[in-house]
Amino acid sequence: MDSQRTAELYGVGLGPGDPGLVTLAAMSVLETAEIIIAPSSHPESMGRAEYIVHTLLPDREVIRIPMQMASGSEGIDRRLHAVRETIRELRPRLTSAAMSAFVTLGDPLLYSTFSLVVEAVVCEQLPIAVRVIPGVPAFLALASLVTTNLLDNDERLHLVPATGDPGHLEHLLEDRESVLVIYKLSSNFAMLRAMIAQAGRQKGAMVGLELGTDRMQVLTLSEAPDKVPYFATIIVPVQRRSA
Amino acid sequence: MDSQRTAELYGVGLGPGDPGLVTLAAMSVLETAEIIIAPSSHPESMGRAEYIVHTLLPDREVIRIPMQMASGSEGIDRRLHAVRETIRELRPRLTSAAMSAFVTLGDPLLYSTFSLVVEAVVCEQLPIAVRVIPGVPAFLALASLVTTNLLDNDERLHLVPATGDPGHLEHLLEDRESVLVIYKLSSNFAMLRAMIAQAGRQKGAMVGLELGTDRMQVLTLSEAPDKVPYFATIIVPVQRRSA
Repeated sequence: MDSQRTAELYGVGLGPGDPGLVTLAAMSVLETAEIIIAPSSHPESMGRAEYIVHTLLPDREVIRIPMQMASGSEGIDRRLHAVRETIRELRPRLTSAAMSAFVTLGDPLLYSTFSLVVEAVVCEQLPIAVRVIPGVPAFLALASLVTTNLLDNDERLHLVPATGDPGHLEHLLEDRESVLVIYKLSSNFAMLRAMIAQAGRQKGAMVGLELGTDRMQVLTLSEAPDKVPYFATIIVPVQRRSA
Repeated sequence: MDSQRTAELYGVGLGPGDPGLVTLAAMSVLETAEIIIAPSSHPESMGRAEYIVHTLLPDREVIRIPMQMASGSEGIDRRLHAVRETIRELRPRLTSAAMSAFVTLGDPLLYSTFSLVVEAVVCEQLPIAVRVIPGVPAFLALASLVTTNLLDNDERLHLVPATGDPGHLEHLLEDRESVLVIYKLSSNFAMLRAMIAQAGRQKGAMVGLELGTDRMQVLTLSEAPDKVPYFATIIVPVQRRSA
C-alpha cells in the first residue's frame, strides 16, 4: 500500500567537484528524487554541489540551505540550527515524497554536512529512512592527477583534518611507509608546511585547490601560497626506496 | 597532426563492485577506448571488473590478464611478469590506439594491480601517456551501508592492509578518535578480530564481503566466519561519547 511506504532521504556524494565524477547511482537518484537539497556557504551564491546538479540536470529545482562555515562548536551549532529550520519547513514535502536527496561534495560520510542533516531528521523525529550513495573523495581525485601509485603492498594511509591537534599530525608524519592526506586546510597552512618539511616529508608533497573546477590548481608545497582555502587537499606521499 | 598525438592508457576505477557506482567519466572512457583490459585471478573466469564492464556494455570486447593472487614479493614478481607479457603482446595495438583502458575495482591508486600495468608500460618503454580516473573505494561503500556518520569534526581515518606488520594495527587501534579501515584480509582474520576486541574497539565494527554483488554480506565482527576472502573490508568506527 502506498500509505505504508516510508519516505527515503538520500545523502548523495557527488564526488570531488568535476561533474564527470558523479556515479550512475547518484545520477539516478538526482533524476528520480522529488526534492533536491544542497548546502551553500552563502545564501546568495550557488554552492559547488548545487552547481554540479545544475550542470548535469539544468531543469531540476534545488533547495539551498545556507550554512555558515564558522569553525568550532559554535559554528557546528549554528549550522545544525540552519539545517533544522530548513528540515522543519520542508517537513510536509519530505514526508510525502517517496525520495528526496541531500547532495554533497565528495562522500556524504567523510566530513560532510550530511551528518547535520541526519541529526536534524532525528531531532525533528521525521518518519524518514536515511540512505547513502557513496562518492569519490577529493584526495583520490588529487592523487589521480599527481601520481600513478598512491598506495601499494603493506603501505598505510592516514586521513586527518588540519583543524585537529597538530601532535597527531606530527606523529603520523613519522610513519614514512604511509601516505598522509590532510583535509580542512585553514589559516594554519604555513605551519603545516613547516611541519612536513621538518619531518623530511616534503618530497613529492602536493596541494590541490578547487579540484574539478575551471579554477583548479595543483601545486607543490613550496609553490603554494601561504593562505589556501578550506576546501584544499594535501597529499604527502610514501617515501619509497626504489622511487 | 594525427601522427603527433600520444596514445593514452587510462587506469579506470570502477568502484567497489556495484555497476551503479561507476562514474560518468569512467563510462565515457569505457565507451570510447579502443582496447579494454581487465585483471582476473583465474584465466577461465571473469573477474569482477570485467563483469562490471560486461554488465554496462555487453558488446564490448575485454582482454583478460590472468593474475595469480599469490602473496609476498614472489607473488608480485609473478603478477608483474604476467602483465609485462600481456603488454608486450598488445604493444602494436596499445601504441596505435588513441585511448585504451585498464579497468580495476575500487580506485586505480589504492592497492590496485594498475600499479603493475604502469610498471610494465615503463619497463617495456611504451610511448604511452598514463591517465587515471578515480573510483569510489570499497570502504566508503561499506560505510554507506552501516553508518550515517563515518568521520566528523577532528576525527581521523587510518587505512591499513591486514598483510602488514600487526604492530602498526595495534598502535592505530589505540587512537580511539579515529576510524580504522582494514583491507586485504587473509588467513589472519581471527587474529585481527582478537586484536580489535583486545583494544576494546569491537563495538560497531563491521565486515563487508563481496560488496556490490548478489552475494554481498555485511556482518558484525562476531558474526563473521573465521575465514574471510581477501576482498573483504573491516571498518572499526570512532568511539563517540554521545553515540
